[in-house]
Amino acid sequence: MGLTSYQHLEKRFKRIQILRSVIHLLRWDAEVMMPRGSSEVRAEQLSLLDTECSAILHSKKTLLLLDRVESRMDFFDDWQRANVREMRRICLCSNAIPKRLVNSLHRATTKAEMRWRQAVEEKNFKLLLPHLQKVVDLVREKANCLGNKLGYLPYDGLIQEYDPGRESQKIDSIFQVLDSTLPALTDEVIAYQSNHPPLGISKEVSIKKQKELGKFIMQRMGFPFHKGRLDESLHPFTEGTSEDIRITSKFAENDFLTGLMGVLHETGHAMYDFALPAEWFFQAVGRDRGMTVHESQALFLEMVIGRSREFMRFAAPCISHKFGVTGPEWEPENLLRLANRVRKSFIRMEADEVTYPLHILLRYNLEKDLFSGKLQVKDLPEAWNEAFSQRFGMTPENPNQGCLQDSHWPMGYFGYFPTYVLGGIMASQLYQSMVKDQPGILPQIEAGEFKPVFDWLDQKIYRFGAKLSCRELVVQATGEEINPETFLDYLRKKYLNP
Amino acid sequence: MGLTSYQHLEKRFKRIQILRSVIHLLRWDAEVMMPRGSSEVRAEQLSLLDTECSAILHSKKTLLLLDRVESRMDFFDDWQRANVREMRRICLCSNAIPKRLVNSLHRATTKAEMRWRQAVEEKNFKLLLPHLQKVVDLVREKANCLGNKLGYLPYDGLIQEYDPGRESQKIDSIFQVLDSTLPALTDEVIAYQSNHPPLGISKEVSIKKQKELGKFIMQRMGFPFHKGRLDESLHPFTEGTSEDIRITSKFAENDFLTGLMGVLHETGHAMYDFALPAEWFFQAVGRDRGMTVHESQALFLEMVIGRSREFMRFAAPCISHKFGVTGPEWEPENLLRLANRVRKSFIRMEADEVTYPLHILLRYNLEKDLFSGKLQVKDLPEAWNEAFSQRFGMTPENPNQGCLQDSHWPMGYFGYFPTYVLGGIMASQLYQSMVKDQPGILPQIEAGEFKPVFDWLDQKIYRFGAKLSCRELVVQATGEEINPETFLDYLRKKYLNP
Repeated sequence: MGLTSYQHLEKRFKRIQILRSVIHLLRWDAEVMMPRGSSEVRAEQLSLLDTECSAILHSKKTLLLLDRVESRMDFFDDWQRANVREMRRICLCSNAIPKRLVNSLHRATTKAEMRWRQAVEEKNFKLLLPHLQKVVDLVREKANCLGNKLGYLPYDGLIQEYDPGRESQKIDSIFQVLDSTLPALTDEVIAYQSNHPPLGISKEVSIKKQKELGKFIMQRMGFPFHKGRLDESLHPFTEGTSEDIRITSKFAENDFLTGLMGVLHETGHAMYDFALPAEWFFQAVGRDRGMTVHESQALFLEMVIGRSREFMRFAAPCISHKFGVTGPEWEPENLLRLANRVRKSFIRMEADEVTYPLHILLRYNLEKDLFSGKLQVKDLPEAWNEAFSQRFGMTPENPNQGCLQDSHWPMGYFGYFPTYVLGGIMASQLYQSMVKDQPGILPQIEAGEFKPVFDWLDQKIYRFGAKLSCRELVVQATGEEINPETFLDYLRKKYLNP
Repeated sequence: MGLTSYQHLEKRFKRIQILRSVIHLLRWDAEVMMPRGSSEVRAEQLSLLDTECSAILHSKKTLLLLDRVESRMDFFDDWQRANVREMRRICLCSNAIPKRLVNSLHRATTKAEMRWRQAVEEKNFKLLLPHLQKVVDLVREKANCLGNKLGYLPYDGLIQEYDPGRESQKIDSIFQVLDSTLPALTDEVIAYQSNHPPLGISKEVSIKKQKELGKFIMQRMGFPFHKGRLDESLHPFTEGTSEDIRITSKFAENDFLTGLMGVLHETGHAMYDFALPAEWFFQAVGRDRGMTVHESQALFLEMVIGRSREFMRFAAPCISHKFGVTGPEWEPENLLRLANRVRKSFIRMEADEVTYPLHILLRYNLEKDLFSGKLQVKDLPEAWNEAFSQRFGMTPENPNQGCLQDSHWPMGYFGYFPTYVLGGIMASQLYQSMVKDQPGILPQIEAGEFKPVFDWLDQKIYRFGAKLSCRELVVQATGEEINPETFLDYLRKKYLNP
């Protein structure tokens, strides 16, 4: 007996998933292991595998199979139906963009990223300008393609690649609430904290010890080291599929907290990936539910749990023990203050939980203006500085403190930034719901028992893979949609009434 | 203007080469980095990429292009012609074996290798027997396919996958010379050396220091670390393509010499790969010339150069300096004696340059008897012990000292063993010719100047890729074919008149 159309489709998507798992490994290796001089052949490898995935998604046979299967959806159970829906979505996204445009974008972003590094070195936006212009032109074309094909406004078409179902109109209303509240709240928190300054930590801690601490805490959280690793890289990241997930952090002798928080962030990403439904591992519906949900899991662990009083009470003795240190600066309450210090910074990557959304919504507004034609690429530095100064009351002294600080735009990632904040809001909602559901969970965290936390996340998020939409997941878990007011309540309580 | 048939073929083989480079990386990662629990998905990845390569080699279009191009060979220069010849050879080898047989072999060897580990643990050949029987049956079928298609005897068909153009009749006559000489020579050398025993080294050296020493010597030899790495693994190996080559060695605190010699062996492999003709990187003719040539390069560096007086005079002060040691046992002459000690051992992997060929030709004879039907798989342990005792005058006490010691057979590698010895003979010939060509080269080695050595190898071997046959390479470099008498002369001089 031959395979059914549905089984044929599953076979094709299994192929894609295996190819993607190889791509993940090649990317991890490029950041952690690969000799510097091997980047050209690595680019060839990645491009070949990527083309191979696209070829499956673009093939007439795949589309024919999808048509056939969609005409008999009542034969299938709800997981299979969701799988078909995700297959169609992935095909639509991929096929919306002509191959010619994919290639031009690849060339343009590779060039722009190289120039971006140079521009950063020389603190000179003009070096990047023509290349960024080219990228924006091409991404605008891509936005039109995606928007047309998927039935969205052009900019919203871009968002679909990262966060399926999200629309900028909704983001606008969420971000407006934050924009009108956070600048004042920031000042309030800074004033409050100036009356409760933490003791500084001057002791240097070897990277080896920091990694040991990181691994110890990962172990306590249930990170399955038989299917994953922790390594070092220039920036923390997570790569892999649930069968082999590798996280990295960046460690500095004089700042163990940043390294540890990086470990927690990436562990949050990894725990989500590890727990995706195993029986759907090779299938579209077995993937994660996009970047907002993924980021919510990372921020939940890094910002919410990792910077909670309960976690610090658990972690402080571990830190003292592993590092061989004691003293008032290593007490939980002081570490908590250190980890939750709010400060105005030019740099997004250094920002805290309160000011971070401001960094993002500034970028989001500029992106939208670039795509509506209201803003020219050449005017970006000025527009950035104006928007920054409005929100932070200070002006970048050079473009490295301004619009050159991120690689997202040179790399063509427009429509991605909002997921950082939406994920942060979602994380705060999950936390409040979890604590309401299971009030006993906080003492368990304090005791270093993290299983109930991950069990709860599994019940609410992990096990659904891409079966439900982000909206459905949030509503199911928290009883409401992504809600900036809940986030603001959480911030006020945590930072003004800690 | 469209591509010519030849250009289309090049494009197809470029694809194969990129896929192969990914396979190399996945294999390296599996041994050095991969979490234990990720082996299933790794197997899926490797199988998919392998199938992808085969699909190109099996496609009607590829074969049609080859036919077309071969009918106009006079249009091409000699590199292109050699490239087409290699493409055809690779296609023939791959297409000779039906897909069904490839899959059965894959399943059977995977199973047999697992059982082999268990059999080793329990020192019980019977656990392996049915699985090895299955592998032998399938490899026999493979041998018939390859022999038929390539115009060789069945067993010689197997050899073609490792060492193109080699025939067992020639191997027989080479091995007969060694078999009739080496047992007596071994006794003679052992007697000689018992009058000149080296001082033992009891000091333990940290693995970190040993790796630093290895890297230092690799650097001196010109190993391009911007396109390669040194790591640790259970057994030393080399994986990669000239754009990204990774070698490993196995280090033990109480035996730095073995670790260092492992580094040299793999560096020999790597230097060959690095120097393959860059302009043919993606093409069949740009590959290495099979396992005899490859092994000759590894043994040249490990056995010939690395165990020479000149090398030890260079290395001894480096060792003293890096390890912080002095004393008569660290003097060049003593290190040389330690490195060149000849001893009868049951285990091939522990064997020295003099006894090593005996280990191999024993295996070679058994293989041939298995394939001619003269020997049954079930009688292997007995036949092994008999053959071993004939040559070494001692009998293995258990199968781990006998026919269970290598994984080659369970993994289906029949016809591979001879390349170890042929490579060793070739290495000794290259050495003698090099020294004759450039008598000044020995003092340069003593001064740690290795460039002239690698330049000479480049002139004679590296730069030809797979353009010439192994026979052509050896004759061009040394003025004679692979010659066991030259090897014996080399051994006598080195071990009886050092």
